[in-house]
Amino acid sequence: MQKRIDLNCDMGESFGAFKIGSDEELMKWITSANIACGAHAGDPHVMDRTVQLAKQYGVAIGAHPGFPDLAGFGRRVMDFSSDEIYRSVIYQIGSLQAFCHIHDVQMKHVKPHGALYNLAARNRQVADAIAKAVYDLDSSLVLFGLAGSELLAAGRAIGLAVASEVFADRSYQPDGSLTPRNQEGALIEDVNQAVTQVTQMVAAGEVKALNGETIAIEADTVCIHGDGTDPVRFVTKLRESLADDGMEVVTFDQN
Amino acid sequence: MQKRIDLNCDMGESFGAFKIGSDEELMKWITSANIACGAHAGDPHVMDRTVQLAKQYGVAIGAHPGFPDLAGFGRRVMDFSSDEIYRSVIYQIGSLQAFCHIHDVQMKHVKPHGALYNLAARNRQVADAIAKAVYDLDSSLVLFGLAGSELLAAGRAIGLAVASEVFADRSYQPDGSLTPRNQEGALIEDVNQAVTQVTQMVAAGEVKALNGETIAIEADTVCIHGDGTDPVRFVTKLRESLADDGMEVVTFDQN
Amino acid sequence: MQKRIDLNCDMGESFGAFKIGSDEELMKWITSANIACGAHAGDPHVMDRTVQLAKQYGVAIGAHPGFPDLAGFGRRVMDFSSDEIYRSVIYQIGSLQAFCHIHDVQMKHVKPHGALYNLAARNRQVADAIAKAVYDLDSSLVLFGLAGSELLAAGRAIGLAVASEVFADRSYQPDGSLTPRNQEGALIEDVNQAVTQVTQMVAAGEVKALNGETIAIEADTVCIHGDGTDPVRFVTKLRESLADDGMEVVTFDQN
Amino acid sequence: MQKRIDLNCDMGESFGAFKIGSDEELMKWITSANIACGAHAGDPHVMDRTVQLAKQYGVAIGAHPGFPDLAGFGRRVMDFSSDEIYRSVIYQIGSLQAFCHIHDVQMKHVKPHGALYNLAARNRQVADAIAKAVYDLDSSLVLFGLAGSELLAAGRAIGLAVASEVFADRSYQPDGSLTPRNQEGALIEDVNQAVTQVTQMVAAGEVKALNGETIAIEADTVCIHGDGTDPVRFVTKLRESLADDGMEVVTFDQN
Repeated sequence: MQKRIDLNCDMGESFGAFKIGSDEELMKWITSANIACGAHAGDPHVMDRTVQLAKQYGVAIGAHPGFPDLAGFGRRVMDFSSDEIYRSVIYQIGSLQAFCHIHDVQMKHVKPHGALYNLAARNRQVADAIAKAVYDLDSSLVLFGLAGSELLAAGRAIGLAVASEVFADRSYQPDGSLTPRNQEGALIEDVNQAVTQVTQMVAAGEVKALNGETIAIEADTVCIHGDGTDPVRFVTKLRESLADDGMEVVTFDQN
Repeated sequence: MQKRIDLNCDMGESFGAFKIGSDEELMKWITSANIACGAHAGDPHVMDRTVQLAKQYGVAIGAHPGFPDLAGFGRRVMDFSSDEIYRSVIYQIGSLQAFCHIHDVQMKHVKPHGALYNLAARNRQVADAIAKAVYDLDSSLVLFGLAGSELLAAGRAIGLAVASEVFADRSYQPDGSLTPRNQEGALIEDVNQAVTQVTQMVAAGEVKALNGETIAIEADTVCIHGDGTDPVRFVTKLRESLADDGMEVVTFDQN
Repeated sequence: MQKRIDLNCDMGESFGAFKIGSDEELMKWITSANIACGAHAGDPHVMDRTVQLAKQYGVAIGAHPGFPDLAGFGRRVMDFSSDEIYRSVIYQIGSLQAFCHIHDVQMKHVKPHGALYNLAARNRQVADAIAKAVYDLDSSLVLFGLAGSELLAAGRAIGLAVASEVFADRSYQPDGSLTPRNQEGALIEDVNQAVTQVTQMVAAGEVKALNGETIAIEADTVCIHGDGTDPVRFVTKLRESLADDGMEVVTFDQN
Repeated sequence: MQKRIDLNCDMGESFGAFKIGSDEELMKWITSANIACGAHAGDPHVMDRTVQLAKQYGVAIGAHPGFPDLAGFGRRVMDFSSDEIYRSVIYQIGSLQAFCHIHDVQMKHVKPHGALYNLAARNRQVADAIAKAVYDLDSSLVLFGLAGSELLAAGRAIGLAVASEVFADRSYQPDGSLTPRNQEGALIEDVNQAVTQVTQMVAAGEVKALNGETIAIEADTVCIHGDGTDPVRFVTKLRESLADDGMEVVTFDQN
C-alpha cells in the first residue's frame, strides 16, 4: 500500500490590522489547517476568512486553541487548572465550529498551540483536559499531538482518533523528544536535510536522532511552519520529494 | 385561552474574580436566561456554570452577545460595520453553543446586550446583521428584541421567530419607544406600578404612555433586571400578580 | 521609642461595571493603599477615583502591579522573562504615576500583586526585575514584600527602602514562610487570634509558628484584606488593640 | 529666515508577535515619532524598544494615544464620555512617560491616533478632553492636530503649543478639510505630486484644493505613513525636494 502523509499548518493567526503568516500562499500546498480561535491569535473576521479559504482549497479545518494571551501569542505557559484548560478549549473550539457551520464545512481536528501544545506533550493532566474537551464537543474530531506525547496518549485513552505529528525542521533526541531550541543542532536549517528527515519518517517510520542513533517514530502529519524563511519553497520541495518517493499527501482522515 | 408570558434576565455577566448579578437567587424565578458570551462580560468558566444553573432550573438558555468592550460592559456604541457585527455575533453565539452542547441542552434564543440591543432597535442595518447571524447559525432560535424595534422587523423578515420584549421599570412614549433615561419619568421605581404596567401589557396588549395615552404593545417576554434593588422581591411580586390575574409564566416557546 | 506600624490594603481593583472590594469603607482605616494599575485589575477611571480617595484620607499611595491577566485577576503565574516583568512593571507604575501627577500627590511605594508577589518572594530573578523597575522609575519608592522574601533582598540590594509585610490571617512555618493555603491551619479565621498575632509581631518582632515555635519576624506593614468577611470590623479591632498596646499606626515612611 | 518643517510618523504600533510598520527603516528619516501606548497598539516591550530607537536617532518622542480597541486598531469610534477620554489619555501618556524616564529622554508631544484623531478634529468636547489631559500631565508638551481642527483650537485655548499637521498623500477640500477617503481623488498616489503638495504647503502656506482653488493652510509638521508603499522612498524623495527648495527638516520645537 502507498504511504500517505498529511501536511498541517497553523493558519488564521492574524489579528485585526496585525498580519501574521502567509495563509493565502500556503493554503494550496497543505492538507490540514489549524485555525486560531481568538485566544492567542485570530479574531472573528480572520476566522471567517480563513475557514472560507480552507474550504476553497479543500483543506481540512481544525481548531487551534491556545492560552488566552494575545500579547504573548500563546507562547508563555499560564498556570491554569485542568478545569480552566477544559473550559477555555471548549470556548475556543465552539467559536470556530460556528464559522464552520455558517460555511457548511465540518471541523475535522484539533491541534493545541504553542505553550499549550508543549505542556500537553509532557503533562498528562493538561493533556487529559484537552482531550476531554475535544471528545465532549465532537468525538469524531482527530486530536493532533507531538509524536510520543502525553497528548496522544490522552486522546487514545478517551477514545479519540489521534494524529502523530512530526517536525521537518527540528532534530530529535534518542528518546524521541525534540532537541530543545536552546541546544546546538536543535534546528534543521538546510531545506534538503529537512525534506530528507520527513521522507525517512514517513517512508520508514524512523528518524535519525541528533546523536546518530536511528529511532522509531510515528508520522501521521507534518508540521509546516508558515513563518519560516520562504515556507512555500519548503513545502513545494517537500511535496516533490514525497511524490518522487511514492508517497501521497492527503488529509489525515484519508490516511 | 390563558395569557402566557416569559420572564427573561441577563445572566452569566460575572468575569473571573469580578461578580455581577444574582444569578443563583434569580434563576428559579425566570423562564429565559440570556447568557453573556465573553465579549462584554462572561468568561468560559462563568458560561459553563451558568448553563448548568439554567439547565438545573429548566430555564431556557439564550445567547446574550454584546460589543466586545469589557471595560465598558458593552454599554458604549462601537462603530462596527455590518460585517463586524455579523461575525462578532457568530463568534459569541458559537462559543455558548459549545457549552450547551457539553451539557446536552438546546439553545433557544438570542438577545443582544446593551448598546448593541439599543442600536439594533433603531438601526435596520445593525438589526439585519444580527438577525442574519442568528438565522445562519440556527434558524430555530428565537430573536428577542424591543417591542416595535427594527430588530424584531429584521428577525421576522429573515424568517426567525421573534419575542417582543417589554420593560416593567421603564415608562413608554406615545410612539411606543422607551422614555430616554435622562428624561423625567423614565424610570418606574415603584414596584407596584411596575407590576401593574406589566400585567396590563400582558393581559390587554396595552400600556399607558408617560403622557397618559394608552397605546398598543406586544408583550411576549418581560425583562427582569438582575442588578436592580432587590430583584428577587420584584420578580416574586410580579409572578404573584400575574398568577392572580390568571396569567401563566412560561418559557417563550410554549407561548 | 513608640512602636509604629503601617496598615496596607489593595485598592482600586474594580474594573468598569465590575466592583470589587470596599475601598470607600476601608480607606479611612489604613495608611497605605496599593492601587491596581489596569493589568490584573483596575482601569483609568478606577485609578483616578482611587487616587483621589486615598489623597482625601491622607493615605499613602502605592502602585500594585500584577500579571496582565484580568480573567485570572493576576493570580495565575505567567511564564514571563525578566525583561517582560521589568517592562510590564514599568508600564503599570508609569500609568499610576500619571494619575498621582494630575492630583498632585507623590507615589510612595510599590507592592506587587498576587502571583507576581508570591513568585517574587521566592524567585530572585523575578524579584530583581521588579526591584530594578521600581528603582529605575523612582529610587525613593519603598518596595513592599513578604517578610524574609527574595523581593526584600532584591530591593535592599539595589538600594531601595523596603517594607517587610506580615499577615494577620495566615499562619507561619518555623522557617518564616506562610503555611500554604491548602494545608490545615493555614488560615487564621478567629479575629482575636489574628489581632494577637499582629500585635506580637509588631511589639516583639516575633511570631508563634504553626508548630508552636517562636520565631523572629520583621513587621513594617500589615496586609489588610479588603475582600474578607467584614474587613472594617477586623481593621478597627486591630487598630484598637494596637493602640491599647501603645503602638502607633502610621504610614511606613514615618516609621 | 529659512522655512522649517517637522516630519512625524506613527511608530511602535507592533504588538507582541504581531509586527506593523517599518520603524527601524523610517526612524532615521523623520524628526518626530508618535509612539503607541498599548491601547490601540503597542505593548510595554514595543514601547521600550521604540523609545530607545527614537533616542538613538535623536528623534523627538511623542505619545500616540488611541481608543482602547486593539482588534480595531483604534480606527473605530467608541462612544466615550469626555471623562472617559480624558482618563484614557492620561493613562496612556503616563505609561509612555515611564519609558521616557528610564531612558532619560523627555517626551515632546502628543498626537492622538486614528478615530480619536479624526473625532477630535471636528468635536470640540473630545478635543477639550484630550487637550486638558495633555496640559494636566505636562503643559510643555506640544499637541499635534489636523490643520484647522478643533483639536488645535482646544490646545491653544488651554495654553498648549500646537503643531498643525498636513498630509502629503491626501487631497484637500476648499474648506481646508481632507477629502473623505471614499470620494474620488481623496488619495494622492503619485509620489511627485505628493511631494509637490508638501513643498507648496511648507513654502507658501497654501495648498491647491481638489477643485483647483488655492487655499491657505498652516504646515508645522507632515504626516509620514509607515504603512504605505515604500515609505522610505517617499520620505527620502520628500527630504530631497525640501532641501532643494531651501527648507530645513527639524524637530517641531526648533521650528
